[in-house]
Amino acid sequence: MTDDQIQERLNARPGWTLKDDKWLVKKYRFPQYMKGIEFVQQTAMSAEALNHHPMISIEYRLVTISVTTWSEGGITALDFELTDRCDRLYGAMCGTD
Amino acid sequence: MTDDQIQERLNARPGWTLKDDKWLVKKYRFPQYMKGIEFVQQTAMSAEALNHHPMISIEYRLVTISVTTWSEGGITALDFELTDRCDRLYGAMCGTD
Repeated sequence: MTDDQIQERLNARPGWTLKDDKWLVKKYRFPQYMKGIEFVQQTAMSAEALNHHPMISIEYRLVTISVTTWSEGGITALDFELTDRCDRLYGAMCGTD
Repeated sequence: MTDDQIQERLNARPGWTLKDDKWLVKKYRFPQYMKGIEFVQQTAMSAEALNHHPMISIEYRLVTISVTTWSEGGITALDFELTDRCDRLYGAMCGTD
């Protein structure tokens, strides 16, 4: 995927940023701690279904998702599939972010 | 808690290390991805019960737990209570580590 293609897709996805040219990163904030944990669990199930696993970090009510395609050394369409699933899950749980 | 007290407790807890003088850190490895996610969920429930929340990071089947007591700027007995709960949870799920 070219830099332009990545930037175009990022522009359409609020909150997602590119880090070190190979990570798509977004921070999600939750009203309760266990809500964030539920989001992590559902994201993980989605990741298993795609066989594409993000890095996840949990700092109290803040959950950070970072995705990349190791085998390609950068961003692929699969990464954006995962970003969209995360956004849909968050939207379903917490409304728009 | 003095450095000696911390070191003594760390010696009795395999896998736990001290980082930057204020974090207790341990990495847990899981046979399946979703097993690690289950561990995270159970750890989170334990953290809620203690009202003491660790940092958690998930990199595929590797889960890293980092605990500190922000209000004290370092390690307290409560941190070791959480380390022990994590170890017991992991032991119950995966046997000894």
